[in-house]
Amino acid sequence: MNTNIPAPSKASASNNHYDLIVIGSGPAGQRAAVQAAKLRKKVVIIDAKEVVGGVCVNLGTIPSKSFREAVLYLSGFRQRNIYGSAYRVKSDISMPDLTFRCNYIVQHEIEIIDAQLVRNRVEVIHGYAKFLDPHTVEIESSSGRSQKSADFFVIATGAKPFRPPNVDFNGSTIFDSDDLLQMKDIPRTMTVVGAGVIGMEYASMFAALGVAITIIDSREKMLDFVDQEIIESLIYRLRAIGVTFKLGEMVERCKMREDGQVVTELKSGKVIVTDCVLFSAGRQSATDKLGLEKIGISPQTRGLLKVNEKFQTEVPNIYAAGDVIGFPALASTSAEQGRLATCNMFNIEAHPLQIPLPYGIYSIPEIAIVGKNEKELTEHQIPYEVGVARYMENTRGFLVGDRDGLLKLIFHRKTKELLGVHIIGEGATELIHVGQAVISFGAGLDYFINAVFNYPTLTSCYKTAALDGYNKLRAQRAL
Amino acid sequence: MNTNIPAPSKASASNNHYDLIVIGSGPAGQRAAVQAAKLRKKVVIIDAKEVVGGVCVNLGTIPSKSFREAVLYLSGFRQRNIYGSAYRVKSDISMPDLTFRCNYIVQHEIEIIDAQLVRNRVEVIHGYAKFLDPHTVEIESSSGRSQKSADFFVIATGAKPFRPPNVDFNGSTIFDSDDLLQMKDIPRTMTVVGAGVIGMEYASMFAALGVAITIIDSREKMLDFVDQEIIESLIYRLRAIGVTFKLGEMVERCKMREDGQVVTELKSGKVIVTDCVLFSAGRQSATDKLGLEKIGISPQTRGLLKVNEKFQTEVPNIYAAGDVIGFPALASTSAEQGRLATCNMFNIEAHPLQIPLPYGIYSIPEIAIVGKNEKELTEHQIPYEVGVARYMENTRGFLVGDRDGLLKLIFHRKTKELLGVHIIGEGATELIHVGQAVISFGAGLDYFINAVFNYPTLTSCYKTAALDGYNKLRAQRAL
Repeated sequence: MNTNIPAPSKASASNNHYDLIVIGSGPAGQRAAVQAAKLRKKVVIIDAKEVVGGVCVNLGTIPSKSFREAVLYLSGFRQRNIYGSAYRVKSDISMPDLTFRCNYIVQHEIEIIDAQLVRNRVEVIHGYAKFLDPHTVEIESSSGRSQKSADFFVIATGAKPFRPPNVDFNGSTIFDSDDLLQMKDIPRTMTVVGAGVIGMEYASMFAALGVAITIIDSREKMLDFVDQEIIESLIYRLRAIGVTFKLGEMVERCKMREDGQVVTELKSGKVIVTDCVLFSAGRQSATDKLGLEKIGISPQTRGLLKVNEKFQTEVPNIYAAGDVIGFPALASTSAEQGRLATCNMFNIEAHPLQIPLPYGIYSIPEIAIVGKNEKELTEHQIPYEVGVARYMENTRGFLVGDRDGLLKLIFHRKTKELLGVHIIGEGATELIHVGQAVISFGAGLDYFINAVFNYPTLTSCYKTAALDGYNKLRAQRAL
Repeated sequence: MNTNIPAPSKASASNNHYDLIVIGSGPAGQRAAVQAAKLRKKVVIIDAKEVVGGVCVNLGTIPSKSFREAVLYLSGFRQRNIYGSAYRVKSDISMPDLTFRCNYIVQHEIEIIDAQLVRNRVEVIHGYAKFLDPHTVEIESSSGRSQKSADFFVIATGAKPFRPPNVDFNGSTIFDSDDLLQMKDIPRTMTVVGAGVIGMEYASMFAALGVAITIIDSREKMLDFVDQEIIESLIYRLRAIGVTFKLGEMVERCKMREDGQVVTELKSGKVIVTDCVLFSAGRQSATDKLGLEKIGISPQTRGLLKVNEKFQTEVPNIYAAGDVIGFPALASTSAEQGRLATCNMFNIEAHPLQIPLPYGIYSIPEIAIVGKNEKELTEHQIPYEVGVARYMENTRGFLVGDRDGLLKLIFHRKTKELLGVHIIGEGATELIHVGQAVISFGAGLDYFINAVFNYPTLTSCYKTAALDGYNKLRAQRAL
């Protein structure tokens, strides 16, 4: 936050002219608009849906995280290491049991976002926006057509699941990630095509429910931005609960048979028959209805918008942020991109501090990373060493029933500066932020060795891992 | 950790002479011994019990935390905000259901400690130690008597519950905190005497099970090292689930009536009749059998050992650490005291970094604090401001069913440096460590405002609270 706030804009006296028009009200759009409002700019969000929040709240992040909590709880998944693998809180779990609280939580989130936008005096218009020229959009809403102009735009329209023609989506047995939770019954068997973040999150949730899952991906390595040891741990743990991986395989076609079973044919000739299929191989940016061709913006494959490091498109007063620009397409990073886009357009210094971005994957178990991984460091020839802690040896890990969790510190072999943290296991997405702070301040192993942590906590894994790292250095006589 | 390790000691050729003898194998004793072993000192732990771990593992921290996890899980406590207040995983919970995993986890912890001691080559002798002179102890064990001498000693014998004569402890209806979990059935009503950490932890756990609790304490304010707003939140939430507080009341006597009910008479003339009583008003340091009178150490009230800032007793080569020296008597701080005692005796710089100690209270809900509280800062006339975040407005807080959690940042009004963090709610004891790191590095509000946190996480409360703090400063035109 910059305290040097410019005076309110005097750009235009017109009611229809804004400093900034944001298209889309997901995390990127919200943050872009709120940041502009904090700078006392006149800002409006235009969203095609009747409610704010975008895919994040209404179809993506929030419903899947609500579903995940319900799965963890009702399946008794965390308790199986204590009470045995057959343990269930509810022996006969149904989809309504699991989605019961989704709507409730989505409604709550919408209220929070609405309140935030009102508090910051961000105007919201529900309607479709289409560019007429680089400074004007036409808005089509239930109340008719209107035009609005602005100095700047942020396109934050997000993405929807990519639906290739060789997959017969039907919303009853062949789903994309947007309609998956509309499923009526929990299947016995399920094929998941696409081992990206969304595919892996849902695959692991249904596997925790006891569904026999087959995961197919055309790449030989999945989630390649994650540390390899963590991915291997995830694969190992998912296999242990009945997941089959078919990596390096392409889908030829996918359709429902007369008996209701879904047949997935692979290019290699293999055939997989399951009760249902989740197809989550990539997303399509929602850029086709914005009239971009008129103003000289050409979306790339699957509608992706290309931006520079300032989040500017080819048209300098039009920025883009969030899922619409692709990787990593996480709610947290999208929000930050939105904020940065606004800071950049109004020439506000956005990053007085260098703080690395964390990544969180809400699979079961959770994965979180911050900083560099071993592959990157090896490529850049930075000498590192690794320290590892296993939840098995951590009292709280044991208490909460996660014996397989792993926390991995990567640090500079000479300076002992912390370079990266990689965690798989209960609480990973929260725990990672301690490592994030230590990296931000340029500190390293000494911090963890000298700090006292509450007992029992998972955070103590940082200390255990740091001691492990120290012992390795000592064994190498590097200390 | 100091890398400047001295050469192995040549103090004595005798097998019965050690660099350090540690009495007690709880967290303080373990860490004192392991630290000495890392400095290549000859060290032995003498423990009166047949297993290592002390009260922490065998009667205190670990059993109570296992019990707590079982209560949270089987009572469905976390889910009541979602599924309604009558929700239970198991409708008829019994004590064996709740203590089922205690033994299992205790066993696991003992194995981990044993492994750590063996790995570090710390000798362990099971027997009673008694000082003959400041450098010699006599050990009485199942195999007879022997003598050992040492340059230094650490007394880490811990504490046991204080049992005043006016309370008729019977192990069936009138308990102290060591035998409470031996209880056969979950009572309908319970009196808890003593609103310290242990009393509040157990009171909140039984309250979560639906037991009607009455808490009595002679002090008008309980847990006075904790921020007042946090304590008031705890009291409010416990009252909401049926807890009655009687503060500023002294117990006259406590005994079982013929019908099995327990009658607690207060000095004010009030009488409380409940199914059972937990008496947890203070602890008695285990110093009476050590022969301290012979060597010139005089324990204080309730056997407490007095130490200086180096953890030395009146006899300079004899140190003490952990519960035996009193407040705060937490496993984490006790371990650190043990480490510091050893570093001090061998002249090793123990604190190259200034990292504040966190405190964790495992009540339901959890409480954690690090740094200063408002009262201390007011006393020292340090101008501060406060920023608050409520779990209610945090997506993950809502997802995990904790709507009442609260995170409070206290920061310097001018420099915006973080001075203290106080949290009540799910995950508090873990979350506090992000604040601990930020305080350690002398940073403040800007860190939280600039950092991107995973979404959804409870950690995001730091950002919300920082923004709240900023807005307050701005409203005061301090920015």
